[in-house]
Amino acid sequence: MKKITKILLNEKEMPRHWYNVVADMPNKPLPPLNPATRQPIGPEALAAVFPMELIRQEVSAERYIEIPDEVLDLYKTYRPSPLFRAVNLEKTLGTKSKIYYKYEGGNYSGSHKANTAIAQAYYNKQEGVRRITTETGAGQWGCAMSFACAHFGLELLVFMVKVSYGQKPGRKLLMNVYNAKVIPSPSTMTVSGRRVLEIDPDSPGSLGIAISEAMEIAAEDPYTKYSLGSVLNHVILHQTIIGQEAILQMAKTDDYPDVVIGCFGGGSNFSGIAFPFLHENIVNGRKTRLLTIEPSSCPKLTKGKFMYDFGDSAGMTPLLPMYTLGHNFMPEKIHAGGLRYHGAGTLVSQLKKDGLVEAKAKMQRECFEAGVLFARNEGILPAPESTYAIAGALDEARKADIEGVSRTILFNLSGHGHFDISAYEKYFENNLPDHELTNAEVEHAISKIEFPA
Amino acid sequence: MKKITKILLNEKEMPRHWYNVVADMPNKPLPPLNPATRQPIGPEALAAVFPMELIRQEVSAERYIEIPDEVLDLYKTYRPSPLFRAVNLEKTLGTKSKIYYKYEGGNYSGSHKANTAIAQAYYNKQEGVRRITTETGAGQWGCAMSFACAHFGLELLVFMVKVSYGQKPGRKLLMNVYNAKVIPSPSTMTVSGRRVLEIDPDSPGSLGIAISEAMEIAAEDPYTKYSLGSVLNHVILHQTIIGQEAILQMAKTDDYPDVVIGCFGGGSNFSGIAFPFLHENIVNGRKTRLLTIEPSSCPKLTKGKFMYDFGDSAGMTPLLPMYTLGHNFMPEKIHAGGLRYHGAGTLVSQLKKDGLVEAKAKMQRECFEAGVLFARNEGILPAPESTYAIAGALDEARKADIEGVSRTILFNLSGHGHFDISAYEKYFENNLPDHELTNAEVEHAISKIEFPA
Repeated sequence: MKKITKILLNEKEMPRHWYNVVADMPNKPLPPLNPATRQPIGPEALAAVFPMELIRQEVSAERYIEIPDEVLDLYKTYRPSPLFRAVNLEKTLGTKSKIYYKYEGGNYSGSHKANTAIAQAYYNKQEGVRRITTETGAGQWGCAMSFACAHFGLELLVFMVKVSYGQKPGRKLLMNVYNAKVIPSPSTMTVSGRRVLEIDPDSPGSLGIAISEAMEIAAEDPYTKYSLGSVLNHVILHQTIIGQEAILQMAKTDDYPDVVIGCFGGGSNFSGIAFPFLHENIVNGRKTRLLTIEPSSCPKLTKGKFMYDFGDSAGMTPLLPMYTLGHNFMPEKIHAGGLRYHGAGTLVSQLKKDGLVEAKAKMQRECFEAGVLFARNEGILPAPESTYAIAGALDEARKADIEGVSRTILFNLSGHGHFDISAYEKYFENNLPDHELTNAEVEHAISKIEFPA
Repeated sequence: MKKITKILLNEKEMPRHWYNVVADMPNKPLPPLNPATRQPIGPEALAAVFPMELIRQEVSAERYIEIPDEVLDLYKTYRPSPLFRAVNLEKTLGTKSKIYYKYEGGNYSGSHKANTAIAQAYYNKQEGVRRITTETGAGQWGCAMSFACAHFGLELLVFMVKVSYGQKPGRKLLMNVYNAKVIPSPSTMTVSGRRVLEIDPDSPGSLGIAISEAMEIAAEDPYTKYSLGSVLNHVILHQTIIGQEAILQMAKTDDYPDVVIGCFGGGSNFSGIAFPFLHENIVNGRKTRLLTIEPSSCPKLTKGKFMYDFGDSAGMTPLLPMYTLGHNFMPEKIHAGGLRYHGAGTLVSQLKKDGLVEAKAKMQRECFEAGVLFARNEGILPAPESTYAIAGALDEARKADIEGVSRTILFNLSGHGHFDISAYEKYFENNLPDHELTNAEVEHAISKIEFPA
């Protein structure tokens, strides 16, 4: 008897709506605050940088939001994405557990980021926007947005975190192929960039700084809006197609996940796969554990503080309730550039606080080791970010074997690592430093958080 | 009404056999000859370097050869591959024609090469082989073989053409991830490599040289066999799953291709998509044109001579009947490394001679321009090799528009260009030289062909 290793859906089975976890949260997320007044902001405060429909989604409490036909049409060029059972990996591990993964790297952008890029570009185009600014870390988000903007006829300006700009020239070039303009951040193009460079001309940059730069440019021009690749509620909303598909796919097997795992930067790929399973937990009494894996060098969920903080380093966003290491925290230059973000999105933060989401931190060498093992067994070269999820899955399988039980493990393979191959070279050269932020360092970082008077 | 842009097959629809064009050829291919005696060689002459089942396939005249279950199982991790209609590209071109493409880059290896790598690794493993040697140009074939060998538990030694080793470090590193050993060719490891280096220490290498090196190592050890990524009949056989799927997919539309296009190096991706359509032409009276696109700098089909020649530069293969520029021809260092081969496989050569296959040559700048246009419209970044097929498809569409007709065009998008992004950088920098081999240069090259006395 053959084992099923690939579970597909046909286009007709593809979900027609996104799932909004807010509808099912026992404690609703706290509102964003105006930094000056410390009062909750209304949607109108976001109108300078986001189109109205995305603001509506950002504050919505509706359980389901319909996916527009134009977005579905482009989704259908790469969705439904496949769900695989990692039979070869299971065999190599000698585990009794079953390991499944949802693969989101099989689209033009190479990661799950396409799911929200397409939606965001579409709504911006609908509302007459001509140009979009955005940030990118490792470049997955920037690539996703570049093609989405090319498709809908929008200009795109990308601030790419400087250390990634150097580490991942391939993704920068791919953005150029898709006709986007890419600027290493911090740059001299913005007030916030120049301020960082004055203090540290060699700043490697961070997602927080790049967000400030992109928002600043967007705020200056009525036809330019800003677009964010993670963290915010509407971004996470668009990713929930992943988990909805995964539920339909798991239903075609005899299994159901005991644990769902995603790597964690701002929260979008984890939330995308996990939230629909949380719905099953809350509404249908399932008991799937939801596990985030973040870098030990940027451990906001495992060691950070739950508080109001800015989403960007210059303090241009509203204050958001989140687990944070401080909006000026400068993460180590690990190769999983997409995980180098100081805070966790509001939704995951609240769910973590309420014990509905678990968190674990890992160092990069162990994750690359897991990535190589995965590639040799399953064929796909994972993005550095995704190796954190793989390492988390291996842990769960090994733990189950020690306990003498078989678990069903599902993780999100958020993207491929074709443009990160030089990071694998460094791994083979034993040239990947491990960093673990100590509790004292975390306390120090948080003590340094400054807010405008 | 929505246009269908992606045509999928389910696993049950996947072909269960490969198609052997020899059964339908009006003139059968001439036999390979022993270089010393000039007499046809028997299968036993190949036994030192190939497993028996592949030799059997090499000389078979059966129309269909069953695909083993173990090969099908691994095929199913990425097949059936999607067929797309390039609606966005059509719109940008403003063409009346319909452009379809079969995408073979969505697997671990990033190209169609996986289709034969899996089959070859399987048969070698079945026959007790422990180690395989092979050559690779741009590295697509080497990557395909690396994972296939890892999967079936075989060691792999890859001779990678030196110019590509420098141009495409990513593919070399990916082979390392899959546990293969990669040597730049020409190397000092073999007699044939040393001979080339003596004459030209800076030789950029060629596929012909790398084949000689790999065959030399294989011939020395009974547990080591050699594996080739294109040219030979059994390699082309394994690729015919592409065209068989494409026929089933086209049947789900109202269209049928007037022309099928593939880029041309040794012949495997072109033959893979085209031969099943040739069967339809011959057996069912269809009239699809079959068009190869080769580099103007390596124009064996458009300007080469049909004659017996060696498949490798050192003369280790039997003499094969082929269109050739001479087994010692050194192609220009174009970025489509997979097209830098001096000869065309026996089957395509005979079919070209008989007027059943057409050939056209193109320069690399035009092809990269077509590749960028394609990426901006369809999202997928094509491999440099595949851009030749795209450029060919654009020609056909433009020609049809001039003639005032609508044609249905199908091309094989043989692979993605994620590891070739630096070639796109050179294109944007206007730093990609064009080379066209003149008739005089071709004549000179052919006049220099030497055979052992």
